Amino acid sequence: MAEPRWDPARLEARFEQVRAHTESLAEPLSPEDQTVQSMPDVSPTKWHRAHVTWFFETFLLSEVEPDFAPFQDQYWFLFNSYYEAVGPRYTRADRGFITRPGAHDVGLYRQNVDARVRELITQVDGGTLDKLGSTIELGFHHEQQHQELLLMDIKHVLSVNPLRPVYAGTPSPRSEPDTMGWVDVEGGLVEVGHEGAGFSFDNELPRHRAWLEPYRVADRLVTNGEWMEFMADGGYQRHELWLSDGWAKVKAEQWRSPFYWRDDDGTWSEHTLHGTHPVDPGLPVTHVSHYEADAYATWRGMRLPTEPEWEHAVEADGQAHATTDAPALHARSAGPATGHLRQVQGDCWQWTSSAYLPYPGFSAPHGAIGEYNGKFMSGQMVLRGGSALTPPGHARHTYRNFFPASARWPMTGVRLADGGAPA
Amino acid sequence: MAEPRWDPARLEARFEQVRAHTESLAEPLSPEDQTVQSMPDVSPTKWHRAHVTWFFETFLLSEVEPDFAPFQDQYWFLFNSYYEAVGPRYTRADRGFITRPGAHDVGLYRQNVDARVRELITQVDGGTLDKLGSTIELGFHHEQQHQELLLMDIKHVLSVNPLRPVYAGTPSPRSEPDTMGWVDVEGGLVEVGHEGAGFSFDNELPRHRAWLEPYRVADRLVTNGEWMEFMADGGYQRHELWLSDGWAKVKAEQWRSPFYWRDDDGTWSEHTLHGTHPVDPGLPVTHVSHYEADAYATWRGMRLPTEPEWEHAVEADGQAHATTDAPALHARSAGPATGHLRQVQGDCWQWTSSAYLPYPGFSAPHGAIGEYNGKFMSGQMVLRGGSALTPPGHARHTYRNFFPASARWPMTGVRLADGGAPA
Amino acid sequence: MAEPRWDPARLEARFEQVRAHTESLAEPLSPEDQTVQSMPDVSPTKWHRAHVTWFFETFLLSEVEPDFAPFQDQYWFLFNSYYEAVGPRYTRADRGFITRPGAHDVGLYRQNVDARVRELITQVDGGTLDKLGSTIELGFHHEQQHQELLLMDIKHVLSVNPLRPVYAGTPSPRSEPDTMGWVDVEGGLVEVGHEGAGFSFDNELPRHRAWLEPYRVADRLVTNGEWMEFMADGGYQRHELWLSDGWAKVKAEQWRSPFYWRDDDGTWSEHTLHGTHPVDPGLPVTHVSHYEADAYATWRGMRLPTEPEWEHAVEADGQAHATTDAPALHARSAGPATGHLRQVQGDCWQWTSSAYLPYPGFSAPHGAIGEYNGKFMSGQMVLRGGSALTPPGHARHTYRNFFPASARWPMTGVRLADGGAPA
Amino acid sequence: MAEPRWDPARLEARFEQVRAHTESLAEPLSPEDQTVQSMPDVSPTKWHRAHVTWFFETFLLSEVEPDFAPFQDQYWFLFNSYYEAVGPRYTRADRGFITRPGAHDVGLYRQNVDARVRELITQVDGGTLDKLGSTIELGFHHEQQHQELLLMDIKHVLSVNPLRPVYAGTPSPRSEPDTMGWVDVEGGLVEVGHEGAGFSFDNELPRHRAWLEPYRVADRLVTNGEWMEFMADGGYQRHELWLSDGWAKVKAEQWRSPFYWRDDDGTWSEHTLHGTHPVDPGLPVTHVSHYEADAYATWRGMRLPTEPEWEHAVEADGQAHATTDAPALHARSAGPATGHLRQVQGDCWQWTSSAYLPYPGFSAPHGAIGEYNGKFMSGQMVLRGGSALTPPGHARHTYRNFFPASARWPMTGVRLADGGAPA
Repeated sequence: MAEPRWDPARLEARFEQVRAHTESLAEPLSPEDQTVQSMPDVSPTKWHRAHVTWFFETFLLSEVEPDFAPFQDQYWFLFNSYYEAVGPRYTRADRGFITRPGAHDVGLYRQNVDARVRELITQVDGGTLDKLGSTIELGFHHEQQHQELLLMDIKHVLSVNPLRPVYAGTPSPRSEPDTMGWVDVEGGLVEVGHEGAGFSFDNELPRHRAWLEPYRVADRLVTNGEWMEFMADGGYQRHELWLSDGWAKVKAEQWRSPFYWRDDDGTWSEHTLHGTHPVDPGLPVTHVSHYEADAYATWRGMRLPTEPEWEHAVEADGQAHATTDAPALHARSAGPATGHLRQVQGDCWQWTSSAYLPYPGFSAPHGAIGEYNGKFMSGQMVLRGGSALTPPGHARHTYRNFFPASARWPMTGVRLADGGAPA
Repeated sequence: MAEPRWDPARLEARFEQVRAHTESLAEPLSPEDQTVQSMPDVSPTKWHRAHVTWFFETFLLSEVEPDFAPFQDQYWFLFNSYYEAVGPRYTRADRGFITRPGAHDVGLYRQNVDARVRELITQVDGGTLDKLGSTIELGFHHEQQHQELLLMDIKHVLSVNPLRPVYAGTPSPRSEPDTMGWVDVEGGLVEVGHEGAGFSFDNELPRHRAWLEPYRVADRLVTNGEWMEFMADGGYQRHELWLSDGWAKVKAEQWRSPFYWRDDDGTWSEHTLHGTHPVDPGLPVTHVSHYEADAYATWRGMRLPTEPEWEHAVEADGQAHATTDAPALHARSAGPATGHLRQVQGDCWQWTSSAYLPYPGFSAPHGAIGEYNGKFMSGQMVLRGGSALTPPGHARHTYRNFFPASARWPMTGVRLADGGAPA
Repeated sequence: MAEPRWDPARLEARFEQVRAHTESLAEPLSPEDQTVQSMPDVSPTKWHRAHVTWFFETFLLSEVEPDFAPFQDQYWFLFNSYYEAVGPRYTRADRGFITRPGAHDVGLYRQNVDARVRELITQVDGGTLDKLGSTIELGFHHEQQHQELLLMDIKHVLSVNPLRPVYAGTPSPRSEPDTMGWVDVEGGLVEVGHEGAGFSFDNELPRHRAWLEPYRVADRLVTNGEWMEFMADGGYQRHELWLSDGWAKVKAEQWRSPFYWRDDDGTWSEHTLHGTHPVDPGLPVTHVSHYEADAYATWRGMRLPTEPEWEHAVEADGQAHATTDAPALHARSAGPATGHLRQVQGDCWQWTSSAYLPYPGFSAPHGAIGEYNGKFMSGQMVLRGGSALTPPGHARHTYRNFFPASARWPMTGVRLADGGAPA
Repeated sequence: MAEPRWDPARLEARFEQVRAHTESLAEPLSPEDQTVQSMPDVSPTKWHRAHVTWFFETFLLSEVEPDFAPFQDQYWFLFNSYYEAVGPRYTRADRGFITRPGAHDVGLYRQNVDARVRELITQVDGGTLDKLGSTIELGFHHEQQHQELLLMDIKHVLSVNPLRPVYAGTPSPRSEPDTMGWVDVEGGLVEVGHEGAGFSFDNELPRHRAWLEPYRVADRLVTNGEWMEFMADGGYQRHELWLSDGWAKVKAEQWRSPFYWRDDDGTWSEHTLHGTHPVDPGLPVTHVSHYEADAYATWRGMRLPTEPEWEHAVEADGQAHATTDAPALHARSAGPATGHLRQVQGDCWQWTSSAYLPYPGFSAPHGAIGEYNGKFMSGQMVLRGGSALTPPGHARHTYRNFFPASARWPMTGVRLADGGAPA
């Protein structure tokens, strides 16, 4: 007899862990903090807390519970993010106008759904659980994605406040810059994409072949100190370094530094989740758009890696491994050179030069869940790695994160590449 | 010896009363409710609570306290509304992005300033108080204006929530419509504008002469039932009834009823501070723009009164008096005809056909306080009377309220006029 | 027997004169010049030429011709300006996208309608002509208004061209500034509005009484030289001089001089219909918004006249008279003081402090023609006088021109006033 | 001794041909037609005629003429498209506001530059010509690109005119639809990109290897008739067929058919350069965005080809060849099946599923000319083939055209693909 794929006890433990982690991230925030949407891309904290709950309610409970009814009719409408197949939704840009349910009421919603999911996991027979397991697991990874979004978003909310509030924690001690090294990669006919029994999102599939000429990638991320050299050399004033759309943004939005840097009477400080502090030259630069990353690479006479180059370099390197620590909330210094790739995960998402497009043979699942990834494969760029805001254990080397080229509020960074031209 | 104009005990009592009333209005609201700005015209509840406090701090305490320092440096910036002379201000449209100070912290700010003002009123010598009295009194009236704005604004905040939340209270029992009567006014060379020792805003001055031909005004406001007849007769579809700018709004924003009315499957209901309820045909129509009021009057073959016509009619009528009851939060039915003007105050502000312009001989005070009214004398229309949201004792017959012709979120209504043409 | 009011020969002569004048104004312009709409407020020259023709076709020929059909079906749609009652219209802001009919084709349209109107005037019986006469006369005045608009608009079209093109003519010789004098006016119960048998627009009616306290008005317009003193004194940088809406415009559009002034390396030059030339300090300042006019008056410690003050001052002065010369295309120097009002007509329209509202007892005619003026009585300010672009004989002392307070492309100027406060 | 690469006589002949072709395309257009910019993406005809002239003046004459001066200083400013390195430019969206130089004056500009280029080609020594030859040749290809843009743009200009004007020519006789066939391609490690001595743009370089799994491509383009089936099956109403950005456009701009289709009382007609005619079901569908092409392919259960798939399929097919006929101004029917790819060039540009990104090893030339292509490698999709508006001899199988995914005014079409998934 085949062993059941999903073990109820482990599923339940995982469920408790993921759900509790979300609440712990919201814990330092007042009801007011949890309510505000400081720009259209941002969602309120309490909306994130409710939406991930709605996800379990919609894709799990509504499929299974015999007399299913939403916890609240209007929540069905308020907390749908973008699933057209589930029905109409409250306008995304207006999420910050909704004061009720308040932060406390969202907690009640969470408790209700938690109890029902718990009961489901522990009570249903193994055959049913085998059918539902992958949806439950998707709910975990979905909630983890929103854990990072929650932190990204609250960072922005607090940044527009002239009181310069602190979310939590303290900055690292001043770091020591080191030299950027390089890792050579042979290339050839390589494979990219997820493989094996573990979880992946649909956009990481199928694993497929790609041709790469020999190339090299930097062994660490670009630092704040290196970015200051770019700025000092007129990086934000020299059109010839920029993509046309990027240059238009530089002028229209008067970019002259990374997103969260402020010029306090001649000294650069940076808004972080720990408050506003002087920029540390040894830390990786972060909160730069794809346009800025590309301009920086051009200035250095280099380029960004493509998506298959990034993934294959990490696989070929063989040393990089998933972060298991609690997220630091800030990127860390690379530390001494190791001969291997450093800062692969846990510091900054790394812009690639690849547009976010379907892999050869990709097809989205049927139904609403098929809207999860596939419909966004247009007009965005891929980032790889993971950041200091990514929950431990969430990211993979095949993980494809994506944002518009102009996005600056995600925790992004820059890894350089070189070579790769036909002989 | 001249008697001091300002009595400390009475000033203090008035101060306590005004300040407590603001807090009582905020009392039913959660921290989340107090944080949100649902459109650029709206300000968050906690911003109102802080701004009226800033007003006393800026225009009173900073002028008198020997070692004055703001309670919080950044509050000086955050809670300045529009006083250019006081310095730069936080962007008005972004007031809803500020989560800290939270509702509780704003309470601490209020307590601090309350204590300092109290001390000032009770400790300074009579000569100083005579100099400061009019500023203190202006602070009372300023705070009262924001009490009405607070209610107007939270009404809007709650209106965009599909949960249809209740602020407080319950609607009146269904009312009985009655017949609209008319009051004839002789006109001639009349006087308009404030006179005497009591408080007025600068825009009510100076009292001056104006010529009026004989005219008449309706003895009550237009009702919801009468408005439904306008709608049924194609009022929102017939361009010939509308001012050009009004018609542009009708089309661009798809107006087809008063602002807070909703068509629930063929029945009109109305969002109120008591929740959403069926429209009561006997109550005054409210939340209509000047454009709508003008179109309605045109449809009836009548017009709106001018500002001097409204004021002189009320003075000539001799019966209307200031409301002293607690504000009802909703307009009330006119009740049986009395031969006098009804619904002069306490129900809906009444659109006039007059633009908001300076009276002959008007001049604004010097300094920041001169920005209170004068700089807004452009592009707005005058409303007279007072509304169910106006705090008791705040309005006067000479009171000049003003809003853009397109504004619908104030508690506005319609009183018709007729005649007034040269013989 | 009553004499016929309208004499066919005189009507025809007037018709030929008005129609020919329009064509003479378009004569210096290439087909390209006649096609372009450089901002939404501007209409292309050939559109003006066609629209005034459409006016005769629509309001005259279609009412009378037994087998009337439009010259071209689509012209009916393209050349309707704002008459809702006539049917749908081509989008106003897109008038510059229409290349055909070209300038030559519009000429053919004009010839066709000219012939039909000519036949109508000369062939119909006197009784019919009596009925039609006022419409024909309205067509003359309508076309004259568009003659001024045509010049205003082409001035703007040429202004956005870095080649700095010339429309026609040459500037005056450098003028000599003189001293601004004052004319005192007694006021009292005065009459304003049109009276008598001559033509007026409906918005000048009815003549009615108004009360004025004693006041005075400047005997000439404010000059460029005086405006430069305002600029040198920080006029465009001092918020306290400005209405709130005006100050918002100053900042948003970075106003720092009159509309058509350019700072050529430290010297102010001015775009005119004669090309770009150094600003002449002795000429009246022109192309300033109401906001600027108001700020200037505030800076001088004065104010703008109200509409009844302006009209009564001119009537009381008794010397001002309609310009009969060909329009100069530029404002002229005031010349030596005369003890009377100077520059009443023929130089710059003069902003008043009055909003454009209906006179007491005003009512618009029935039907489409009622849309001519009445529906615009909202959100605009009145100007009085006439400008160097106004066709001779068009303006009157009772004439009410109107534009939004922010408009700068009309040929506007500033006459100061003072006094008028209640004793 | 090395033979000179560039033959003066052949260069001159080519120059005359290219320049004359531009003028012949403008010939049917009036000065008014040549002036207008009907949306920001469109440029006026006379601007195109001047800009391609400016290109020769700037990149050729200014580099060589000893006493070079621009024909007109301001033309340098007016007719620079997007070359930051050449200096500031007139605002792109305002090109339609410039009436002078008129169409005739632009002709004089062209004649002047023609004479100077002619002299240069025929007078300079062979060594200099060898240095300049590639710039001259780039000028030819640049002008050819603008020949297509000129037609695309005037098509749009005429489309917004309710008179439905004709540019030139007549539509084809009604065509017979045929069956879509398929061409199988083996794939493997293929090469893509330009190779050899002939001209290519820099973005076609370098030729490089790519890995392709076996796939197939349709042997002809999707027809209007097939598109009508998509529409009839709710193609524009079914969110599940669309990319998220595409669906947002469908809703915001109310797309319900290809760009130039109009619903004339239930019959679909199409605006073409020959006027407005009923849609011919046998012709290729055109003027559809990438979003629509992608949704259509999804509806068919297929996909669009990638860029390397398209190029390799054409090379492997071995039959497709460059069009040498005069452009038809409209796409033609595919005609009977041939076993080979049909409609490769000369009908519609074909959307691929590839983002426009640099080839491995791509680097832009130094200086202003480096801005030609490289800086646009962001946020756009690649199209392959060529259209009925492309001048004969201009396109190649390696040619990379590119537009934003939302663009509908280029002459785009749809070729389906299938397969390509890893085994």
